[in-house]
Amino acid sequence: MNIPAYVNDCCRRAQHASRILANQCADTKNDVLKSMAAMLEAETELIEAANAEDVAVARDEGMDDALLDRLTLTGTRIAAMAKGLRELVPLHDPVGAVLAQRTRPSGITITKVRVPLGVIGIIYEARPNVTVDAAGLCLKSGNAVVLRGGTEAYRSNLALSRVLQAALAHCKFPVDAVQFLETTDRAAVDALLHAEQYVDCIIPRGGKSLVYKVAETSRIPVLKHYDGICHTYIAKDADLAKAVAVCYNAKVQRPGVCNAMETLLVDEHIAPKALPLVFAKLREAGVELRGCDKTRALDPAVVPATEADWRTEYLALILSVKIVRSLDEAIAFINEHGSHHSDAIITENHYEAAHFLQYVDSAAVYVNASTRFTDGGEFGMGAEMGISTSKLHARGPVGLEELTTYKYMVRGDGAIRQ
Amino acid sequence: MNIPAYVNDCCRRAQHASRILANQCADTKNDVLKSMAAMLEAETELIEAANAEDVAVARDEGMDDALLDRLTLTGTRIAAMAKGLRELVPLHDPVGAVLAQRTRPSGITITKVRVPLGVIGIIYEARPNVTVDAAGLCLKSGNAVVLRGGTEAYRSNLALSRVLQAALAHCKFPVDAVQFLETTDRAAVDALLHAEQYVDCIIPRGGKSLVYKVAETSRIPVLKHYDGICHTYIAKDADLAKAVAVCYNAKVQRPGVCNAMETLLVDEHIAPKALPLVFAKLREAGVELRGCDKTRALDPAVVPATEADWRTEYLALILSVKIVRSLDEAIAFINEHGSHHSDAIITENHYEAAHFLQYVDSAAVYVNASTRFTDGGEFGMGAEMGISTSKLHARGPVGLEELTTYKYMVRGDGAIRQ
Repeated sequence: MNIPAYVNDCCRRAQHASRILANQCADTKNDVLKSMAAMLEAETELIEAANAEDVAVARDEGMDDALLDRLTLTGTRIAAMAKGLRELVPLHDPVGAVLAQRTRPSGITITKVRVPLGVIGIIYEARPNVTVDAAGLCLKSGNAVVLRGGTEAYRSNLALSRVLQAALAHCKFPVDAVQFLETTDRAAVDALLHAEQYVDCIIPRGGKSLVYKVAETSRIPVLKHYDGICHTYIAKDADLAKAVAVCYNAKVQRPGVCNAMETLLVDEHIAPKALPLVFAKLREAGVELRGCDKTRALDPAVVPATEADWRTEYLALILSVKIVRSLDEAIAFINEHGSHHSDAIITENHYEAAHFLQYVDSAAVYVNASTRFTDGGEFGMGAEMGISTSKLHARGPVGLEELTTYKYMVRGDGAIRQ
Repeated sequence: MNIPAYVNDCCRRAQHASRILANQCADTKNDVLKSMAAMLEAETELIEAANAEDVAVARDEGMDDALLDRLTLTGTRIAAMAKGLRELVPLHDPVGAVLAQRTRPSGITITKVRVPLGVIGIIYEARPNVTVDAAGLCLKSGNAVVLRGGTEAYRSNLALSRVLQAALAHCKFPVDAVQFLETTDRAAVDALLHAEQYVDCIIPRGGKSLVYKVAETSRIPVLKHYDGICHTYIAKDADLAKAVAVCYNAKVQRPGVCNAMETLLVDEHIAPKALPLVFAKLREAGVELRGCDKTRALDPAVVPATEADWRTEYLALILSVKIVRSLDEAIAFINEHGSHHSDAIITENHYEAAHFLQYVDSAAVYVNASTRFTDGGEFGMGAEMGISTSKLHARGPVGLEELTTYKYMVRGDGAIRQ
């Protein structure tokens, strides 16, 4: 098999399908989503059988239990994928919205209309549910998708994509709208990242090293999310009860995700009162505390933090803690050490709150709320493809609207430029 | 001089300035623009002297007359730059606009606010006016800018940037908001393209090879514009007078720019009537015609077009002409051979017009109007940085709004995620 030629052909066919897909109405796309959901449920046994082969091979090759669990598809998990597709149905279709319209002195009328991006390439790691989630989001937003999943889940992803394609065929929709690269050859990733003639956008979903590699290699624009090093800053005028509740939620409610707090900053004026309360609560949940010298002077049981701690996304029950002298020091520290994802201030002082919101350069900035809210569902955008820490195109949750672009439709009556 | 260290330091200082600049009100920024304009006029002699050295060196090195003319700064041209800055003053400041606001069931209030991108790197070729135009647009939209101009204009650009910085200092604005890389070493370009810690967006302004190199090398998102291969399609129900006027305007009014027509498509049903009229008018202006076999059968004086003609941006009084059988063939041809910039249909048939607008995958699609209108000024956006043929972030004219992003400001009262 000539891998680059094969990948190029898949992308070319996806582009052809995307031009049909871009002009389908919401009802038609929703019918396909419902059909996909129904077929996934009907084909549960076939999907489980393919998945069992992936799991057996992965176990033989020594995959650890946590990853094996992520790889495994059960009836419940397949039903959850189907439910995810059905949840897309009632969401507002972003395509076709008129974003602006004006008639110019020259006589032309310009209409700025939301349209799909076209073809989206998704490169992802072991979790096979991405195959279904990504295909559903792309379809609903009028985009064709080229999927390149992880080798460990190859048989599972292949089975899932065949079911999705069967649903497309059943609905007399172009089957090429969902392409799955049927090869485990790594050359396919490079070929996909260079198919700029056909692919409009690449979205990597996986660990930091995958995302870096994709961003480094791709000639196509990438919607990327590196890490989530999120801060909470307890300012001098913080309400202590809110500080304790928000910090606990941000660190403990789900520590393994990108919007969990990794670093706590505390104003030196409030630290002697605030830290004992916050630490007591966090220790109840077994959080390991690593602190600066001033923090350790207040609480010698805290482990010393190293320079690396301020730039680490733990994704675990570990928290680094630093005492700062002022709001400005907190803001500078966050802009320097954070990942521009989500950062919060706890304060009753409106001036400081406004200053923090203005000067912290992150996708989501919070006052008296947990950073855990940075999420498409919590933001009211419905399902999401991920959280963008880029500033171009999409920032924060990438939902249906963020998977679109616009075009200018211009109407004249023989208008010429002077 | 350690070039990467020097460039990194310029970018770092630009980022620091950008955080101050992002929070300035429109009046303050407008005062700086006015001061820059006044100082450019006051320092005309100094700028002309620096430019004269560039021109003398370029002439010695054999630069051709057209390029020498582009490089040369006169009092009139310097006054035009100052005028360009003053024209930015009345334009609406995009920063701070509330794009959406909602209160969620969780109790948080989410406000999506327009903010500057941060630091924009501009890499450009010989024309020194870009130094002033780009700095003005970036400043008005609240961004810091790092400028890397062409070697031929080095002394001119240096003089211009020093004047701009003097105006910043005069207004007590951070001088680091406008950085000019004071080196002609090519290593500086690579260093700028890899300064992803400090630079949010790269905009190349120049020929296709420059843009390709930048897109290939940069780790930072690039707002790019390759070429403008624009089509006009005379459909079977076209009004012939409009067809002649629009084609003439699109090809002849200013042939050297990206929104000029390069290829004319004509429906076979109307070609025998339309082409003689269109060709007669174009020949008055000295346009060279290159056509397909069917075109040549109608008019043997037309030169044969080669395959390369359909993919060439002439930027000159040359036009390739092809007769097609249907609207669908025209659309497929444009999507395949065009550059997704600007394409027009001439028709009185509303169904065909709507179909063309929907299915042609270009930044600007026109009915009965000249493609020459694709321009920030003509679109009512004011000045522009260029025309984007990318789909992500900005498509079509890149004006002040397109130089911004957004952030989510979230307010709670101790809100935690369930």
